[in-house]
Amino acid sequence: MNNSPSKDQTLKGLFIRVRAMSLALTAPLSAEDSCVQPAEEASPAKWNLAHTTWFFETFILERWEKPFRPFDSAFRVLFNSYYNAVGEKHPRPFRGLLTRPSLEFVLEYRHKVDERILRLHDDVWGEPEFQSLLELGLNHEQQHQELLLTDQKLLFSLNPLAPAYHERRLTASSGVPLSWKKFPAGLVEIGHRGEAFAFDNEAPRHQVFVQGYQLASRLTTNAEYAVFVEQGGYDDPQYWLAEGWDWRTKQGRTHPLYWRPHAQGWSEFTLSGLVDLDPNRPAVHLGYFEADAFARWAGARLPTEAEWENAAQTVPFTGHFAGSGEFHPRAAPEGELVQMLGDAWEWTSSSYAPYPGYHAASGAVGEYNGKFMVNQYVLRGGSCATPDDHVRTTYRNFFPTWACWQFSGIRLAREA
Amino acid sequence: MNNSPSKDQTLKGLFIRVRAMSLALTAPLSAEDSCVQPAEEASPAKWNLAHTTWFFETFILERWEKPFRPFDSAFRVLFNSYYNAVGEKHPRPFRGLLTRPSLEFVLEYRHKVDERILRLHDDVWGEPEFQSLLELGLNHEQQHQELLLTDQKLLFSLNPLAPAYHERRLTASSGVPLSWKKFPAGLVEIGHRGEAFAFDNEAPRHQVFVQGYQLASRLTTNAEYAVFVEQGGYDDPQYWLAEGWDWRTKQGRTHPLYWRPHAQGWSEFTLSGLVDLDPNRPAVHLGYFEADAFARWAGARLPTEAEWENAAQTVPFTGHFAGSGEFHPRAAPEGELVQMLGDAWEWTSSSYAPYPGYHAASGAVGEYNGKFMVNQYVLRGGSCATPDDHVRTTYRNFFPTWACWQFSGIRLAREA
Amino acid sequence: MNNSPSKDQTLKGLFIRVRAMSLALTAPLSAEDSCVQPAEEASPAKWNLAHTTWFFETFILERWEKPFRPFDSAFRVLFNSYYNAVGEKHPRPFRGLLTRPSLEFVLEYRHKVDERILRLHDDVWGEPEFQSLLELGLNHEQQHQELLLTDQKLLFSLNPLAPAYHERRLTASSGVPLSWKKFPAGLVEIGHRGEAFAFDNEAPRHQVFVQGYQLASRLTTNAEYAVFVEQGGYDDPQYWLAEGWDWRTKQGRTHPLYWRPHAQGWSEFTLSGLVDLDPNRPAVHLGYFEADAFARWAGARLPTEAEWENAAQTVPFTGHFAGSGEFHPRAAPEGELVQMLGDAWEWTSSSYAPYPGYHAASGAVGEYNGKFMVNQYVLRGGSCATPDDHVRTTYRNFFPTWACWQFSGIRLAREA
Amino acid sequence: MNNSPSKDQTLKGLFIRVRAMSLALTAPLSAEDSCVQPAEEASPAKWNLAHTTWFFETFILERWEKPFRPFDSAFRVLFNSYYNAVGEKHPRPFRGLLTRPSLEFVLEYRHKVDERILRLHDDVWGEPEFQSLLELGLNHEQQHQELLLTDQKLLFSLNPLAPAYHERRLTASSGVPLSWKKFPAGLVEIGHRGEAFAFDNEAPRHQVFVQGYQLASRLTTNAEYAVFVEQGGYDDPQYWLAEGWDWRTKQGRTHPLYWRPHAQGWSEFTLSGLVDLDPNRPAVHLGYFEADAFARWAGARLPTEAEWENAAQTVPFTGHFAGSGEFHPRAAPEGELVQMLGDAWEWTSSSYAPYPGYHAASGAVGEYNGKFMVNQYVLRGGSCATPDDHVRTTYRNFFPTWACWQFSGIRLAREA
Repeated sequence: MNNSPSKDQTLKGLFIRVRAMSLALTAPLSAEDSCVQPAEEASPAKWNLAHTTWFFETFILERWEKPFRPFDSAFRVLFNSYYNAVGEKHPRPFRGLLTRPSLEFVLEYRHKVDERILRLHDDVWGEPEFQSLLELGLNHEQQHQELLLTDQKLLFSLNPLAPAYHERRLTASSGVPLSWKKFPAGLVEIGHRGEAFAFDNEAPRHQVFVQGYQLASRLTTNAEYAVFVEQGGYDDPQYWLAEGWDWRTKQGRTHPLYWRPHAQGWSEFTLSGLVDLDPNRPAVHLGYFEADAFARWAGARLPTEAEWENAAQTVPFTGHFAGSGEFHPRAAPEGELVQMLGDAWEWTSSSYAPYPGYHAASGAVGEYNGKFMVNQYVLRGGSCATPDDHVRTTYRNFFPTWACWQFSGIRLAREA
Repeated sequence: MNNSPSKDQTLKGLFIRVRAMSLALTAPLSAEDSCVQPAEEASPAKWNLAHTTWFFETFILERWEKPFRPFDSAFRVLFNSYYNAVGEKHPRPFRGLLTRPSLEFVLEYRHKVDERILRLHDDVWGEPEFQSLLELGLNHEQQHQELLLTDQKLLFSLNPLAPAYHERRLTASSGVPLSWKKFPAGLVEIGHRGEAFAFDNEAPRHQVFVQGYQLASRLTTNAEYAVFVEQGGYDDPQYWLAEGWDWRTKQGRTHPLYWRPHAQGWSEFTLSGLVDLDPNRPAVHLGYFEADAFARWAGARLPTEAEWENAAQTVPFTGHFAGSGEFHPRAAPEGELVQMLGDAWEWTSSSYAPYPGYHAASGAVGEYNGKFMVNQYVLRGGSCATPDDHVRTTYRNFFPTWACWQFSGIRLAREA
Repeated sequence: MNNSPSKDQTLKGLFIRVRAMSLALTAPLSAEDSCVQPAEEASPAKWNLAHTTWFFETFILERWEKPFRPFDSAFRVLFNSYYNAVGEKHPRPFRGLLTRPSLEFVLEYRHKVDERILRLHDDVWGEPEFQSLLELGLNHEQQHQELLLTDQKLLFSLNPLAPAYHERRLTASSGVPLSWKKFPAGLVEIGHRGEAFAFDNEAPRHQVFVQGYQLASRLTTNAEYAVFVEQGGYDDPQYWLAEGWDWRTKQGRTHPLYWRPHAQGWSEFTLSGLVDLDPNRPAVHLGYFEADAFARWAGARLPTEAEWENAAQTVPFTGHFAGSGEFHPRAAPEGELVQMLGDAWEWTSSSYAPYPGYHAASGAVGEYNGKFMVNQYVLRGGSCATPDDHVRTTYRNFFPTWACWQFSGIRLAREA
Repeated sequence: MNNSPSKDQTLKGLFIRVRAMSLALTAPLSAEDSCVQPAEEASPAKWNLAHTTWFFETFILERWEKPFRPFDSAFRVLFNSYYNAVGEKHPRPFRGLLTRPSLEFVLEYRHKVDERILRLHDDVWGEPEFQSLLELGLNHEQQHQELLLTDQKLLFSLNPLAPAYHERRLTASSGVPLSWKKFPAGLVEIGHRGEAFAFDNEAPRHQVFVQGYQLASRLTTNAEYAVFVEQGGYDDPQYWLAEGWDWRTKQGRTHPLYWRPHAQGWSEFTLSGLVDLDPNRPAVHLGYFEADAFARWAGARLPTEAEWENAAQTVPFTGHFAGSGEFHPRAAPEGELVQMLGDAWEWTSSSYAPYPGYHAASGAVGEYNGKFMVNQYVLRGGSCATPDDHVRTTYRNFFPTWACWQFSGIRLAREA
């Protein structure tokens, strides 16, 4: 007799847990906090809650529920993010104007869609295509859970009152020295293979030739980055890409996004509010231009994604993710190669591009990844805001060079 | 024995009533509705509630309360609109990012400041300077009551769900024909004189020579304006000021801000939601360029403010203001010269400028009016969103030419 | 026997002289100098030469020459400035991209159109309507002669080499103290009346009531304006209109457009190149916001156009215009009321608006003035770059508040 | 006895020929044509002539001429393009405002610098470092020769008169069908190795693993691209990268930059003026987004630069370059793999990035390439405007995705 749960039962449990986690993350937020959009690239928490629900309603209920009736016919347009194949979209910059539907009504929307998904016939739950879309929806929701935290952090950071998302106290930490780990030249394999869920952009698994290289044993710390800042790194064009120098000039950027100078040094705005900058924790909320400039100043460079993934395959899968509930990166432990997973997304020097043989899915979900493969750079490893079971060593996150509002940091690389 | 209340007792009553009215106006709004800023020129309801309170705390409590302790020291900057003499200001475009302080806390702020004002010693209440600043504060708050309605209307208009501010039903109305009323040439007097409250920009009373002229008996109606629209008025540069033509082109404007075309004609977005355009009600939410273009198309022109005020002095002070609770202009009644007060602000062709001999008050309140006297045009008469006891025939409202989000309409003028 | 020349013979002479003056003014310019557009609001010299010719070809030859053949059919669109009734226009910001037609070809265009105008039959030259359009064309060309100088000055000022337009040396001058001249309150008449040429915006002559006032005896000097600059006038918002303060902040303006700080004081960029700032010459190239701020700082104000014109009628018509060939304002002579004409345009506080009873001409030339009557301010008196026989005491020039590239200065006014 | 010329004599000849070619290319241009800047990314011809001379003066004469005196001390700043290590730069958008120095004076500048270079002592000419900088300067000048043509084409294209750069007639051509050439998977080598001149970004030569792939035998033709246009390719987001769709929407782009619709089909603006679109010639002046969208529509993709270079190594080095004096791409000849060199730059899907082990040169010339390695895409093969002896199979050109003003076209690739 086989007591192990079937895939559809496992999926049901996962569905319930992931959906509940989104609610848990918004618990500290008032209706006002949930409604406002801090910048064009960030979304209100309420919108995140509704859009992830829209995904299940549109791609699952519309197809498998008979007869299907939309929860609210306006939502099809209102909460479509960027799927042209679904039709019209409410313009991205206006997401924060939607004081209606109320947060309460969006919570009801979530509740009703959840019920209807869970009520779908067992035959539906057994269908591979259903399972694969449901998994996509859950992974999609987990991505928005991370965004929900970083979008909210951005919003609070723009408030002169510097409100804290939660009361969690960040304690002082101790540091470890940086060492270098060598990897030989050779043909290596990267990319996703097999049955388990992965986004389409992680496949196919394929061979890449890498030169010999070294990776820093841990992420760059605040203390290390502060030297760059204090020695005039932001004022010397020789460290910067030309476009990065223009960016820094136009933004008037002289230090990382969430650092605040004070008489004795630096504070950092965190989800626990404004705190003293901890020298041993990783420097985060850096854009690509800053990561690249720091690396050049340090006589090193950023790793390629093949270098990163090749190395990540050699270490156990462990890291500090959102499950700890801290939502801030921790100082590195001892080790030859640590912090590869969790703490902070690591900028690579690789432009986001399709792997050889990549094919986008057909239909609307084919718009998930492929159409963004230009003028963005790949980040690897997940962060302290990434759900624990969300990333893989093959996972490819991507953002434009100017993006700073994610927990993005630096792991240095250099020639062997 | 004299039973009439003293001025300070009257003022106390007025203070209580005006402050309560602001709360009443926000009753239909959720915390989310109150927090969001629809455009740079408009403010969130919560901000309006806080800023009007800041005015009393900063200009009255700081001066007369001994010892004075600020309710919250951050508010001095946070809710300063534009008073440079008070110090730093939170930037106008970011008012909508303040999800904290919460609406609840702002309501407490109002409550506490009200209490403290009312607790000020009777001697203070008897001081003429105190009385004059308190009156200014109350008139200031009434201006924000009107803005609160028009800002909220703008916000709701940008929501595809077109939410209604209240359930009030607008019933069909009947129209009256337009006639012209003549006024002879001569030296006339305009401007405020005497003891009663007026803004500094209404004084001094002075002589102006006006040529003979005629005024339309009532405001331009939706039906009249629709002919202009439907006969291609928005597509023919001959009716437009050059800068107006550029404005209309850049905005893609082909009809008034809140009109929506449908198969059988036009809907209008109102504070009661989306309704059929009522042909007999006044056309509102027109910018200066639209008002001027319509007038030229109609073979007429806009009145000067001297022409308007000279005429307004001849009619009884009566009109449809906010007190009715409708917040939408009504169709004109019969009469030789009606709707001069209330229903809709009337664009004049007069650029907003100081009257001869005008002097701004000294100190921070001197920034109230004078510094805006350029590149704006005067509107007269108050609207359906203006508190009933707020305006006078000498009252000078002013907005830039592109502003459309007020209840602004047209009264035609022509040579005698 | 009557030996006085007929009006058409006078006009012929005038035509020849005015057309020749435009060429004379461009003599110091290379083909390169003539082609480039320094800013959207300014035009290349070549464009000015062509557009003024287009005016005669379009409004005169097209109507009176039989049969009419355009010199080049593309020019109708290419050199139309803003006449919608004539049809399409080449977009204003792209005037500087027209390296073809060459300067040489434009000079041939001028020559050919001149010949054809002068060859028109005597009957045509005798027609009042022809005469009136020709006069308009010549006055139009004179306006462009002034623009040609100020546009070229702007272009050269943006060149780090600071090239001089001509070799004329500016010699040091001596100053006279400022006094005030009083004018009583009363009904006065302003505006153009009679047969002689005037632009439509100068009519009709009409009565205005003015309060008693005083005017400064001469223009504000560089020395006076330098005190304002050096005492922090540009850093203190209390002197500025709110919109002016924003303008100054966005522009980073800390002194007049053509002033350059150096170790010992100030240089000024002139059409004679970079020279030491002459303390006794009038401060010029000021925008409305600067003029208004200086006046407030000086405890005075700008005059209205009625005040200015009323005063101008009391002094002999004399002034320093372009005829001197210096193209820079001179220091004031002794006198009760001097420099009313010439030297520098004087900003008035009057918004540019139609006079009571104003009617634009019909047809395309009706677009000459009326459609600009919004958000601009009137300047009076002509400048050192205005042709000597071009202005009148009734002449109304107008520019937006931000415009600084004309020879615009300040005459203070105050209450009597 | 060895009669072959020494390297320094060969270099002298090359110097004379390359410098003369720049003059030859500007022969059809008037001083006006040479002065104007059509867009921020393009430069005036005069500026190109001066900047290439500045390169020799700054990097060679300043170092080897004793004593060195600058031709004109202002030029060091005026004609510095982007070398921060040299000091200040005249801002790029203002290059077109420099009507002075005159074209004539810039020609004298060229002449004088040429003389001084050629007069440098034989010992200097024999120094390897001198030779290497001189070669860099000549290759730099050749790059500007191509830009000079494409910048001028852009300028003329913006003139409604559509002037032709030269009288060369483009004759109708015949076409060849497209076939596919296969390349097997494997480790291949790309990049520059050896003594001959190459830019630093072409090195080091290194191994890359490529999957099996196919390349189109020739460039995409106008006829092929017209099908994409006419079947609505520009109106269907499914073919476009998300950022490309936004670009196309904001630009209002519905066809390639230089195509003009007419009643019977298409014209194309060329350096020979406006001509009928030749169906058999390659489609050019396409941006990355257009190339990528066309490839997706065609069921193919763009090649990577490794794929391209691997293939290019298999064909003889031959192509249609600027030497023919046509400056327009020709129709493809018969062949398995043709047009790899010349005719049109071929967009690759490779983001411009450093090769493994890349090191920028030290000093100012180190700014030549490395600092641009972000958010740009690599183009390969040279064009009809590239000097004949300028490119190599290892040559890496690069432009941002939006750039369309180069002769950039499409070679399709697909999986094997």
